[in-house]
Amino acid sequence: MAMKVSPLAPKKVPQLKPIEGFKIATGATKIRYKDRDDLLLVEMVEGTVVAGVFTQSSTRAAPVTWCEWALKSGAARALIVNSGNANAFTGALGDHAVSETVNAVAALLHCGDEQVFVSSTGVIGQPLQVDKITALLPSMRHNLKADGWHAAADAIRTTDTFPKVAMRRVLVGETMVTINGIAKGSGMIAPNMATMLGYVFTDAVISQSALQDIVNETNAVSFNSITVDGDTSTNDTLLAFASCKAGNQRIEDIDTPIATAFSTAFQEVMCDLAQQIVRDGEGATKFIRVRVQGAATNESARKIALSIANSPLVKTAIAGEDPNWGRIVMAVGKTDEPVDVSHLAVSIGSHPITEGNGLVAGYDETPVAAYMKGEDIEINVKVGLGRGSSTVWTCDLTQEYITINAHYRS
Amino acid sequence: MAMKVSPLAPKKVPQLKPIEGFKIATGATKIRYKDRDDLLLVEMVEGTVVAGVFTQSSTRAAPVTWCEWALKSGAARALIVNSGNANAFTGALGDHAVSETVNAVAALLHCGDEQVFVSSTGVIGQPLQVDKITALLPSMRHNLKADGWHAAADAIRTTDTFPKVAMRRVLVGETMVTINGIAKGSGMIAPNMATMLGYVFTDAVISQSALQDIVNETNAVSFNSITVDGDTSTNDTLLAFASCKAGNQRIEDIDTPIATAFSTAFQEVMCDLAQQIVRDGEGATKFIRVRVQGAATNESARKIALSIANSPLVKTAIAGEDPNWGRIVMAVGKTDEPVDVSHLAVSIGSHPITEGNGLVAGYDETPVAAYMKGEDIEINVKVGLGRGSSTVWTCDLTQEYITINAHYRS
Repeated sequence: MAMKVSPLAPKKVPQLKPIEGFKIATGATKIRYKDRDDLLLVEMVEGTVVAGVFTQSSTRAAPVTWCEWALKSGAARALIVNSGNANAFTGALGDHAVSETVNAVAALLHCGDEQVFVSSTGVIGQPLQVDKITALLPSMRHNLKADGWHAAADAIRTTDTFPKVAMRRVLVGETMVTINGIAKGSGMIAPNMATMLGYVFTDAVISQSALQDIVNETNAVSFNSITVDGDTSTNDTLLAFASCKAGNQRIEDIDTPIATAFSTAFQEVMCDLAQQIVRDGEGATKFIRVRVQGAATNESARKIALSIANSPLVKTAIAGEDPNWGRIVMAVGKTDEPVDVSHLAVSIGSHPITEGNGLVAGYDETPVAAYMKGEDIEINVKVGLGRGSSTVWTCDLTQEYITINAHYRS
Repeated sequence: MAMKVSPLAPKKVPQLKPIEGFKIATGATKIRYKDRDDLLLVEMVEGTVVAGVFTQSSTRAAPVTWCEWALKSGAARALIVNSGNANAFTGALGDHAVSETVNAVAALLHCGDEQVFVSSTGVIGQPLQVDKITALLPSMRHNLKADGWHAAADAIRTTDTFPKVAMRRVLVGETMVTINGIAKGSGMIAPNMATMLGYVFTDAVISQSALQDIVNETNAVSFNSITVDGDTSTNDTLLAFASCKAGNQRIEDIDTPIATAFSTAFQEVMCDLAQQIVRDGEGATKFIRVRVQGAATNESARKIALSIANSPLVKTAIAGEDPNWGRIVMAVGKTDEPVDVSHLAVSIGSHPITEGNGLVAGYDETPVAAYMKGEDIEINVKVGLGRGSSTVWTCDLTQEYITINAHYRS
């Protein structure tokens, strides 16, 4: 299926530079895609620490189960990712495909099995032709090079219309460190602990436990705060790798100033990638930020924000550029979360619409309707109870979403 | 917007006959619809008992709050319903519109305010022009007649493409009683205690508490087991009225044989109406039954069934006639409910697909793909744990849903 690039794609794409400790190669297995690379191998230097979060799906895929186990060692030497086949719900065959892949990579790179991280993304329930992967590995090892982050982001795409990359450089103490990230979307996106696939690489010197703490903290406000269609993938994986080659003062504790600088930049990379996934949501024409304030707790605010962000009626109204705020009120009401209706305030962009149980005095829909014609839509809701707040990002629901998903496999 | 009748509309429509104790009139307020009746008045004989369930939305509409209060008296003399304006999130103006309506009806019919039940359905957040309703009441009172159930079902429609009526006759002891039902859909359908609007009328002699027990019990397996889009309305209302004119032995206790006969017929009317709402789901081309068995509890089975039924990816695959069973596995996995993946069995129609963690031996997709071309699709899932089961009805998600909802207000 030929696909137009999403109208919401970032206008400026950063150029990701090499990071000491990481080498990249891509290859074409031709398992599903006939005309592009669909296999990514990243080799990592000895001493690389790894942290991660994974889907909470009870039908999670074989490579996810593997990574959860491998993460216990905390050390990584390789990441291998294929796109087009999710190796999910493939039973013993699926586990076998993972161990074949791991064995082949470990033998080539002379490392332990538990240092090889594996991801798959694509169609669920089809046996993975693992021989097509292992056959490519020797030549890919030969081609490993420090450059190639953009090719890496390209190789892990499925229905994504653009590759997703993000980069920040930040001073840790007096040492500059680099954080590169790549990710893929773009349907079955309602991450429950992580997104489809996201990888962050850094040369920072950091302990495994500090890296895991930062992943957990920043994941909550990035990948765990986006939704395209409310469907949680079987393969959601987010992994962060630190080669520890930058020479900075080692980050051990996340409550120190050097950790805060690093963590802030890390969060920016995570949010950048997560928002790009929404911007490439299947069929998306609008990027929507839903902000809920005044809830009983942050978690309550998040549930209300997700209810709005996942409502097909809210999403179709935005696709139709219709300021149908009544549907936002409906989506607030349908959760079990406490709300003070007499203080419920809804605004779209900077336009207040309701204040308490009714319209603001002199409400004029004309400027709101004009605002809805833009690409970036902000919905703000105050529920009048407490200090809990949450921001969630999503996109609209269009006919193109139906077109893409009615015939995805064919 | 001119609308084609849903391809899933029932091929045979029962002719609803008069029931002793009920008189009907309809009228045209021209509040939203210019060319059709949009107001329904049902007068009920003294002695009519009433039971009901309502939306659990925290932003429920003014008429719902009124009905919840009025239901405490347990007696009804009138039902008045307008379509086109939901009188939801309309603040003090909304409460005022309800009391104006109630006062006018009570004065005309010489009954207490608490015996007048009011419903509204349509756009949220617009003030209801109540004078256009009250102005019609005197002439409608003049036109009240025993016949007219089909006109009643017509008057309460919004985006419904066909009126929804159901009827059963059943022997209670040796006395024949009649149960007539009308309802409307057809978007914002994920009832949480009741549906958009449903009304059941009977001449059976029955106590208020027995009627309420039967409503609660049958609602769980009818209106509370359907979903079109996962969006819960602010106005969901189900009311049952019994004129107690049939002369049967009074039904006092739902555990007696005469109650069981009545309750079974009552449930058939409720399920018939609920399934018609799904068959008129916005843009629907397929009627889908999701049955989950082997769950830890019935409630767990229901959550899994609703997760499948509300998944946009499952619904779009069915719209595309694609037996993409991997998405069913995804939707099972994304709930928090316990599942034994090694015994997870998925079948579509009578075709087993998975058995344990993988495909059944010799799986051939050809007959499943042929089955998907039909109008009625059955999905059966066994989660391999316990004896909990649940059936949920839904429809597919098509481009027509987007078309209808992107521009509903304009």
